[in-house]
Amino acid sequence: MNYNDVLKTARTCIGNYCKACTICNGIACKNSLPGPGAKGVGDTAIRNYQKWQEIRVNMDTLFAPQSVDTSLTLFGQTFQYPFFAGPVGAVNLHYGDKLNDMSYNEILVSACKENGIAAFTGDGTDPRVMESATAAIANADGRGIPTVKPWNLDLIREKVKLAHKAGAFAVAMDIDAAGLPFLKNMTPPAGGKSVAELRQISDLVGVPFIVKGVMTVNGALKAKEAGASAIVVSNHGGRVLDQCPATAEVLPEIAAAVGSEMKVLVDGGIRSGTDIFKALALGAHGVLICRPFVTAVFGGEKEGVKSYIDKLADELKDAMTMCGAFRLSEITRDMVRK
Amino acid sequence: MNYNDVLKTARTCIGNYCKACTICNGIACKNSLPGPGAKGVGDTAIRNYQKWQEIRVNMDTLFAPQSVDTSLTLFGQTFQYPFFAGPVGAVNLHYGDKLNDMSYNEILVSACKENGIAAFTGDGTDPRVMESATAAIANADGRGIPTVKPWNLDLIREKVKLAHKAGAFAVAMDIDAAGLPFLKNMTPPAGGKSVAELRQISDLVGVPFIVKGVMTVNGALKAKEAGASAIVVSNHGGRVLDQCPATAEVLPEIAAAVGSEMKVLVDGGIRSGTDIFKALALGAHGVLICRPFVTAVFGGEKEGVKSYIDKLADELKDAMTMCGAFRLSEITRDMVRK
Amino acid sequence: MNYNDVLKTARTCIGNYCKACTICNGIACKNSLPGPGAKGVGDTAIRNYQKWQEIRVNMDTLFAPQSVDTSLTLFGQTFQYPFFAGPVGAVNLHYGDKLNDMSYNEILVSACKENGIAAFTGDGTDPRVMESATAAIANADGRGIPTVKPWNLDLIREKVKLAHKAGAFAVAMDIDAAGLPFLKNMTPPAGGKSVAELRQISDLVGVPFIVKGVMTVNGALKAKEAGASAIVVSNHGGRVLDQCPATAEVLPEIAAAVGSEMKVLVDGGIRSGTDIFKALALGAHGVLICRPFVTAVFGGEKEGVKSYIDKLADELKDAMTMCGAFRLSEITRDMVRK
Amino acid sequence: MNYNDVLKTARTCIGNYCKACTICNGIACKNSLPGPGAKGVGDTAIRNYQKWQEIRVNMDTLFAPQSVDTSLTLFGQTFQYPFFAGPVGAVNLHYGDKLNDMSYNEILVSACKENGIAAFTGDGTDPRVMESATAAIANADGRGIPTVKPWNLDLIREKVKLAHKAGAFAVAMDIDAAGLPFLKNMTPPAGGKSVAELRQISDLVGVPFIVKGVMTVNGALKAKEAGASAIVVSNHGGRVLDQCPATAEVLPEIAAAVGSEMKVLVDGGIRSGTDIFKALALGAHGVLICRPFVTAVFGGEKEGVKSYIDKLADELKDAMTMCGAFRLSEITRDMVRK
Repeated sequence: MNYNDVLKTARTCIGNYCKACTICNGIACKNSLPGPGAKGVGDTAIRNYQKWQEIRVNMDTLFAPQSVDTSLTLFGQTFQYPFFAGPVGAVNLHYGDKLNDMSYNEILVSACKENGIAAFTGDGTDPRVMESATAAIANADGRGIPTVKPWNLDLIREKVKLAHKAGAFAVAMDIDAAGLPFLKNMTPPAGGKSVAELRQISDLVGVPFIVKGVMTVNGALKAKEAGASAIVVSNHGGRVLDQCPATAEVLPEIAAAVGSEMKVLVDGGIRSGTDIFKALALGAHGVLICRPFVTAVFGGEKEGVKSYIDKLADELKDAMTMCGAFRLSEITRDMVRK
Repeated sequence: MNYNDVLKTARTCIGNYCKACTICNGIACKNSLPGPGAKGVGDTAIRNYQKWQEIRVNMDTLFAPQSVDTSLTLFGQTFQYPFFAGPVGAVNLHYGDKLNDMSYNEILVSACKENGIAAFTGDGTDPRVMESATAAIANADGRGIPTVKPWNLDLIREKVKLAHKAGAFAVAMDIDAAGLPFLKNMTPPAGGKSVAELRQISDLVGVPFIVKGVMTVNGALKAKEAGASAIVVSNHGGRVLDQCPATAEVLPEIAAAVGSEMKVLVDGGIRSGTDIFKALALGAHGVLICRPFVTAVFGGEKEGVKSYIDKLADELKDAMTMCGAFRLSEITRDMVRK
Repeated sequence: MNYNDVLKTARTCIGNYCKACTICNGIACKNSLPGPGAKGVGDTAIRNYQKWQEIRVNMDTLFAPQSVDTSLTLFGQTFQYPFFAGPVGAVNLHYGDKLNDMSYNEILVSACKENGIAAFTGDGTDPRVMESATAAIANADGRGIPTVKPWNLDLIREKVKLAHKAGAFAVAMDIDAAGLPFLKNMTPPAGGKSVAELRQISDLVGVPFIVKGVMTVNGALKAKEAGASAIVVSNHGGRVLDQCPATAEVLPEIAAAVGSEMKVLVDGGIRSGTDIFKALALGAHGVLICRPFVTAVFGGEKEGVKSYIDKLADELKDAMTMCGAFRLSEITRDMVRK
Repeated sequence: MNYNDVLKTARTCIGNYCKACTICNGIACKNSLPGPGAKGVGDTAIRNYQKWQEIRVNMDTLFAPQSVDTSLTLFGQTFQYPFFAGPVGAVNLHYGDKLNDMSYNEILVSACKENGIAAFTGDGTDPRVMESATAAIANADGRGIPTVKPWNLDLIREKVKLAHKAGAFAVAMDIDAAGLPFLKNMTPPAGGKSVAELRQISDLVGVPFIVKGVMTVNGALKAKEAGASAIVVSNHGGRVLDQCPATAEVLPEIAAAVGSEMKVLVDGGIRSGTDIFKALALGAHGVLICRPFVTAVFGGEKEGVKSYIDKLADELKDAMTMCGAFRLSEITRDMVRK
């Protein structure tokens, strides 16, 4: 079962909005919401994908071959690869009845753990989403990152408790969730946070705190000031604000600005190991991939996840070998052309 | 009734030239004249739309949430939003028999007034157009902007009298109307104006005078010298001269050149609240939107207008919230990426 | 009969290669040779057209209206407009049996003369082509420009004698004709010329000598050194060398380099009066238009030519009026945006 | 039989993956592997082709015509033209049953020799591939370049012996072959080489050694340090690493960096004599063309190869004549526009 087979199966059981495209580039779903599309005119996810394609890889094989080490150490944890499955919420609203947030996370978290990486889990207005996600993370010995929405402090406190109970090695917050159409006018509201509020949350979290949804140097510096251990350069796949820049466009300047104390992750249109290589060359420590893991779970459950991880791993190793980078720290800016 | 429903209805009753497209981007109508198309090869309206898409919004949600105030004060009047319905003329020539200039303006002016904004009305060779437009503005307590064509001074004087009688808070002139194919060889002729002539007109107008159809820094400085209170950076949707630059291309340099004494408005391809946000970030005080209000009136009359205004308002608030701008004056140049 | 009607008729009687497209942009004919297409992969004519579209016109109507004078004085002759019909050869090979070089030139030369401009005529291996072309020019009181191919000096001398006899006010040579596939391996051969050879030809010509087919600053300076009165910046519509730059790309640097003593004309993808305005703003003194005159002659003979000239004239006046240029010398570089 | 006829015949007998397209630009085959496609998303071969099209040729015919000398002297050998047929391997896997590596090389090597150029031959895991290739080269009096894969030193030594026995005037190694999907996990493995290893190989080779698959300045300098007589700037048609830059993008900086001691060849998307001219103008001494020779052999065997060589030769001479370059050394950087 390779990832193309997984996609074929996914097409038979995924909801009407996602087409489980061979190349998941935001074109077929464009602005279908509900569904995996982007907000407004819907070109942000497309731009995310395309801007990675404009970055090219500088092949150089005049190196003695070495075995490739793709392992990433983050917050004291070692992962086999520098990529993570991204958080998804409202799975059956957007992707159909076959799975819901609970069953989706259960499959994803354990499959990721078993294959050497970790999954971010999503959050929702239904409290059971976070409960089951953190239960799955607990089963995975804490190798998963619960992603709490930017609720009010009371609700955040509750959710963080679940994360602590699960032994999650880190906790994330998608700080841009205020823009999600499906969270509009919900009670309690989810919204932006000031630096002071974010510091409170960071203190509350205790374990490494990852702020997801940063698209500007200024935002990154505020997250750092608030005590974040990492940020995810992300525009939420275009789902929270119409017509953002692509993450590949803003990553280099953000990575340059934050220095080495805070880790920089990135998501948005990263689909292959080659794309991962590019992101690392542009300054990211690791990446998140989201929609393709959804089709992987729909199309092949744990085996589907494994096949996609294997594909990414092969491609990443390939790119590293062909550029003479044999561990992640050897991937440098001059290995890509922009 | 949302704006998509309005468009659907519009498609059943609008004339043959306008397709009431979901995205009104100048492609389907291209150079259909009569109709809503542009002049010559017809790519100016398309370029207007596309150049806004190239400007991207720099999301940053690390702000404490605040309620958003979108209100604009212009010439002593306060509007709920920084956008206006643009002027249209020869409605039944271009858009079919359902409405004419008189019935169109009547619906539009009052619907805009009731929803917190104001409409610009058009002018025509038939004197009844301006008469009924100013009557509609009078009914709206002067919340409307009659747009006088650049006739000779005698005719302008007559039209301005009507504007005064209606208590219009401002009067505009589309100084580029000489290029309209349907005004060619008419009596009296409409044409360009020298600075001296424009100052005469400005004095005659008395109330704030808005010069519409400026596309160069030099033109803007001449309008200022002539005493204009505001300009509209506009290429008349491509209908007066083939192959102009897009308004989004020239707005920043014009806004920078005129300083703060004269207000800068802009139109051309602005279709969403996100586009409005971009225009304000690039230096505009407000925007005009034209063709989509036509489909709104055809597709839903006053309710149609309301649904489009609500859509724009929601999108604008969304963009402001997601960038940490809680009133219009907080929208700054660094909030967009060009 | 407007030019669109002319095109419709042309489609009924022109040969199989030319489609008499509404927009003559090199796409439908691409590399059809015989036919109006370009050489090799055939993208040079397409690029010629497209590069004009990238140049935009800076509208400014804050000028007192004046009547527009489009007249051009060149070599002591006054023309109503700054455009010429370009030379065509092998008409029935490329455009079908309805016309041949003789009948084509007869119609074109007189129709151009009657409508205030002049036509360049083509040359061919058949001596009757130049004989009949110069006869047509004689009938037009010398208002036509015979274009001699770069044969050997003896043959050039013969052809120039015909030009003299016709009283042609100028003589041109398409110095790039060596690249024409249909002249390959013909006797006598047509080929490039050294500066010394070109000076000999220029002396022989006596009347103003126009060197057509210059695409570099260096080439322009050599033509000047050889005594040319004018050059035509031209890549022969892509028919002599695959993958040239567009003429709009090289015109500004060539115009800047040659100074005011030698006139600069340009052709390639100029289709509208707006394009003519752009060419003049970028430094040309006049332009040549070729293929659309072929469809004009096929579709409407003398009336067809008139309708196309009228169309161009209207568009040019329009662009001038809308930019505040009321005679050709007032068209300046800052009136276009590149 | 011209090359278009050859392509037509090729379409009747080539395997399912290659479409023998009129323009071989990587679009139809994209990422079909097996087949002639590129690796991963498959846009590298497409980019190779397109980047040549962006480079334009600066025509200047103000030169006295001379006869054109296209001959190239490389490593003491004189060739009629500065282009070579590139190496292909696994012919029947990628192109169908009609031919295999043995029969393909036999036709290609002799046809190239007879028409004044030379072919690079490929290598494979089957030892008979190199045996028959070198036999063909021996029959062509050593006018062929065996291309050895980067095996371990023992196997390289064996293969080089065959090359020596054949009297090959040069030996190449495609140093990027480690990325070929079909060589993955084979025994013995093919892989990258350190400078030290490459120098060993270069010493072993004795005759001029050509390192194929260099895409960076740094890689080129390492090849030079290791004693290579030439490099081929190549991304292996996109088949060894996804999303490389086009070779036309990196050629100028590499050619500038290596100086005149080491020769620079280039391949990737070069399809016409005009493209060859561009490559030489950008600093290459010669070029390799690969896929079109496959369709030439399938579609017309030796005659097919001749027709393609003749086509390239005509186009190259044409471009040279039209730019005033009458021998290869006269092709200079200013003859192209980028």
